[in-house]
Amino acid sequence: MKGFNGKILRVNLTSGRLSVEEPSEAYYGRYLGGRGFIIEKLLTEVPAGIDPLGPDNKLIFALGAITGHPLPGNGRNSIGAKSPLTGAYGESEVGGFWGAELKKAGYDAIIVEGAASEPVYLKIENGQAEIRDARKIWGLEVADADKAIREELGGEKYRIAAIGPAGENLIRFACVLNDITHAAGRTGLGAVMGSKKLKLIAVKGDNPPEMADRDKILQMARALAKDTKENPTGFSINGTGGAMDKYEAIGNLPIRNFQGGTFPNVKELMPQRMKEKGYWDKMESCFGCPVRCKKKLKKIDTPWHVDPIYGGPEYETLAALGPNCGIDNLEAIMKGHELCGRYGMDTISAGATISFAMECVEKGIITKEDTDGMDLTFGNAEAMLEMLERIAYRKGFGDVLAEGSKKAAEKIGKGADAFAIHVKGTEVPMHEPRLKQGMGLHYSEHATGADHCTGIHDERLSMSELNSMDVAESVPSTELSPRKARILYQLGLWRHIPNHIGMCLFVSWSQKQLTEAMEYITGWPMSYWKLMKTAERGITLARIFNIREGLSAKDDTLPQRFFTSPEKGPLKGVSVDPDQLAEAQKIYYQMLGWDESGVPTYARLVELDIEWAQQYLRP
Amino acid sequence: MKGFNGKILRVNLTSGRLSVEEPSEAYYGRYLGGRGFIIEKLLTEVPAGIDPLGPDNKLIFALGAITGHPLPGNGRNSIGAKSPLTGAYGESEVGGFWGAELKKAGYDAIIVEGAASEPVYLKIENGQAEIRDARKIWGLEVADADKAIREELGGEKYRIAAIGPAGENLIRFACVLNDITHAAGRTGLGAVMGSKKLKLIAVKGDNPPEMADRDKILQMARALAKDTKENPTGFSINGTGGAMDKYEAIGNLPIRNFQGGTFPNVKELMPQRMKEKGYWDKMESCFGCPVRCKKKLKKIDTPWHVDPIYGGPEYETLAALGPNCGIDNLEAIMKGHELCGRYGMDTISAGATISFAMECVEKGIITKEDTDGMDLTFGNAEAMLEMLERIAYRKGFGDVLAEGSKKAAEKIGKGADAFAIHVKGTEVPMHEPRLKQGMGLHYSEHATGADHCTGIHDERLSMSELNSMDVAESVPSTELSPRKARILYQLGLWRHIPNHIGMCLFVSWSQKQLTEAMEYITGWPMSYWKLMKTAERGITLARIFNIREGLSAKDDTLPQRFFTSPEKGPLKGVSVDPDQLAEAQKIYYQMLGWDESGVPTYARLVELDIEWAQQYLRP
Repeated sequence: MKGFNGKILRVNLTSGRLSVEEPSEAYYGRYLGGRGFIIEKLLTEVPAGIDPLGPDNKLIFALGAITGHPLPGNGRNSIGAKSPLTGAYGESEVGGFWGAELKKAGYDAIIVEGAASEPVYLKIENGQAEIRDARKIWGLEVADADKAIREELGGEKYRIAAIGPAGENLIRFACVLNDITHAAGRTGLGAVMGSKKLKLIAVKGDNPPEMADRDKILQMARALAKDTKENPTGFSINGTGGAMDKYEAIGNLPIRNFQGGTFPNVKELMPQRMKEKGYWDKMESCFGCPVRCKKKLKKIDTPWHVDPIYGGPEYETLAALGPNCGIDNLEAIMKGHELCGRYGMDTISAGATISFAMECVEKGIITKEDTDGMDLTFGNAEAMLEMLERIAYRKGFGDVLAEGSKKAAEKIGKGADAFAIHVKGTEVPMHEPRLKQGMGLHYSEHATGADHCTGIHDERLSMSELNSMDVAESVPSTELSPRKARILYQLGLWRHIPNHIGMCLFVSWSQKQLTEAMEYITGWPMSYWKLMKTAERGITLARIFNIREGLSAKDDTLPQRFFTSPEKGPLKGVSVDPDQLAEAQKIYYQMLGWDESGVPTYARLVELDIEWAQQYLRP
Repeated sequence: MKGFNGKILRVNLTSGRLSVEEPSEAYYGRYLGGRGFIIEKLLTEVPAGIDPLGPDNKLIFALGAITGHPLPGNGRNSIGAKSPLTGAYGESEVGGFWGAELKKAGYDAIIVEGAASEPVYLKIENGQAEIRDARKIWGLEVADADKAIREELGGEKYRIAAIGPAGENLIRFACVLNDITHAAGRTGLGAVMGSKKLKLIAVKGDNPPEMADRDKILQMARALAKDTKENPTGFSINGTGGAMDKYEAIGNLPIRNFQGGTFPNVKELMPQRMKEKGYWDKMESCFGCPVRCKKKLKKIDTPWHVDPIYGGPEYETLAALGPNCGIDNLEAIMKGHELCGRYGMDTISAGATISFAMECVEKGIITKEDTDGMDLTFGNAEAMLEMLERIAYRKGFGDVLAEGSKKAAEKIGKGADAFAIHVKGTEVPMHEPRLKQGMGLHYSEHATGADHCTGIHDERLSMSELNSMDVAESVPSTELSPRKARILYQLGLWRHIPNHIGMCLFVSWSQKQLTEAMEYITGWPMSYWKLMKTAERGITLARIFNIREGLSAKDDTLPQRFFTSPEKGPLKGVSVDPDQLAEAQKIYYQMLGWDESGVPTYARLVELDIEWAQQYLRP
């Protein structure tokens, strides 16, 4: 088998047993790696109804066929588990160097099961795996733990996936960080890692993976690199966030917990401003990628010390800790970003949970008494920063917000849930679903809750991405129609392919290039149809996982807020029509071969070669 | 636009008006030609419930993107209309040179509507079309009409699609023949042409179509030609029929109207025997195709005169006029084949209708009194030949059989329908659905009735054709299961692609090659997904056409005979289980996005960008 190592490492932290499994080539061919492996394992190995933070949950790190191969956007891996934030299917993708290193170390995936009684870490070096004592590094912030373990192992060459105090403290939106700056942010997988008392996984490998046609891959890599250099996108220049002012103008930028309106100081927060202010160092890359989309900033000493080791904030972070909290202070956001890195917390959920609390304060639902005296009001940068720490360490009111906005609203009561802007428990990312109604539709139905990486950002762009003359004309962003469901169906499948094969969305692959890359790497006959059907398989299995956990179509909704329109700003008068949403969902379900209530039909399971999953749909 | 001319010729024979339409590039991109054009036009232009042999029917000749381009298997065109044999969607594909010539003459399709009051023919030369008097050639056999019109037009360079007396006499299984030997055999399109008093269409063109990337196409053509030469399949050596003895041994060869048993003299009828007997001349090809699968035979003088101008019999003809009529006389079959060519009748339906009558005689349902004194018994070669003529000219009992086996059985009554081996009125081709149960499933659901070109012949081969690791293991030929429905779904789409793009099944294209060929010709971004979805679009529109005509899931069945097993022979004890068939159909429907009763869902129409067709599903 080419492209993959053919080996999956299973680590039982309860027993300390390590074992290696070698699934068949047909298995690899059916799921193609990444989320495909994860969902198959979670569905077949994790019983229904278990506590996501208990030893019965499994945390799976999985690579795709492309991970670690000499191609742009090749540095990614998937992580998955039952989510402590949603109680549903949890998954997040992450870049950096860790995935490629694991591939070189001889594995395609790691299944972590059980839980250690004392903190441990995992060391993997060229096929050899070892569970080691992590008591000395437990409690350390991410960069400190990273440094300590490199010293202990005596080498800079390890690649490390770690959690911070937030993961240890079971913050429900704690993340896992690859080499300090690359976050698998969403759905609280850092808390699952913390619950298993697994501080980090250090990996080293010296064996680059084999390819079926190395020459063709190198040729393709050169062409893509050349194209990236000659036609750099905004990603290579500013990372994300370079268009925040445009977002503000059209209403895509969330402001004050998605209340809408305008945010005149938006330019103060943009990457361009970081450059003007002299904070900018350079752009950095993931493993072997010419896109170089990661901001590296300089040390800042005032008004806050900001350690550049944690990288620089991207758009989601800038918006979540900035305008959505009513904050226009760039340095505060940069500090907040650094804190989220130190503690290991998802910046979207952290920011959105704080903005939720700020609106509760604004609406009089909570007062200074509830917040331990803090003035948690929109625009208060100091309070935002203080709150991040209190959340990570579950101090006072931070212990409430550490549960994420959905559970926090339940604890607070008094109608607070009206201001918790989440889907299935996952805080809504920084793209307005009233403007991007295709994205809103996607937020509503996605297995992991609101996710901005797999939906529709721009209908016109999407159609050109799909190279689809089938979609005869553009559908306006604010339209929510059956045709929008169609774009989401096709684009959704396309956007899920990267999560299987370990590829980054920021590389402008065409369908043809992606298909060829997969063929040249694996040597398997490949087609875009096969890739799309693999994505459909993953989406359907994730749906079945959620149904088994008790979720249904009624959980496929948007926060009430989006069914009303903002009182001012570019989205005045614009809202999501709940009937249109329900209708578009039904259409979308059926396109996927699910019934009108979103339950996959047996026929589609057979078509996708996963009829084995039918058993999980039976009561 | 490349690949297509962008022009469709509309010919109204009632008014004599000729007009040219230029649909948008998006239209071409959505349907890709061939059956895609045909079904869209039939559905939108032909009202429900019309008489297939009346002036309201439309007869459509349509080319695909590949037709007429320098690639193997490029000589094909589709013909369609509401079928007089089934009252449902009618379509047939045909090779030769006519399609390529029409492409060079400047058109992608011809829509023939209305009906002439006196016989006419159509002359098309480099974009110029003309309706001309055909009274002199009306009544002529196919080759005679062909010759006469070439003399009239003063040139050998015309390519001619013609009907014979059978088409003129509205025989419900009359065919259309390209250049005498290439038959668009099934579903009675020759009768539709006859009903319009259109004897033939003579075409001449001098402008080869443009391609987006001529060099790549020529490169591909050379590679495919080289591969065909170095690895010739049986098609290049014997045409079809070279494995009849193997078919007989495993039970695939229909014997005595599908009654089963053995046929020891099968070797007497095979192409190899034609060679031994000195009847063989050489293999001929369609337009520019290296496969060369068409038998050219020598003149025979005894015991019957056989004119070699009508080509040689292929497997379907050999079986239908041979073993399925209990006949083991090679020369008689060759003569029968020639007669079908002379008169312009589908050899499958002609043979099967005669074998139906022979069984009615065997069972005592009809006697010599009914058959005008003929001894129409199994094995009587003279009677078979005589009957072919009586059918073509509707003489005596031939007038009954000219209606096809279904309608003939209705006329005969007395339980004759038990021996009419058809689906929806289309006689079952020469592949046993009890052995090939995937093919049986396909026969049962296909829009045009039993069709052997778009179903499953060999599960193992099919899977390799699909390059599909998705289908993890082979499913035995006699198994009829949900997994078999899955193979049919994927393979069925794949096998329908050629009918859209004008490609021959006998060229071993890979998915990748076909996708690339389409891209190099049209310049449109292409993917295997897009091709499969185009095929799905065609299948779904044909279904809607049939639903509008009053057909439903109850018409998706097999002749009762196949639910019982033969008393002897290789299929003793083997039958189709009707419950398994119904279950597999349901699964298959749902895979196509139809409901359990086979009605396409609105969601799938939207997905396929054909929501316009929803109106035809409303009562």
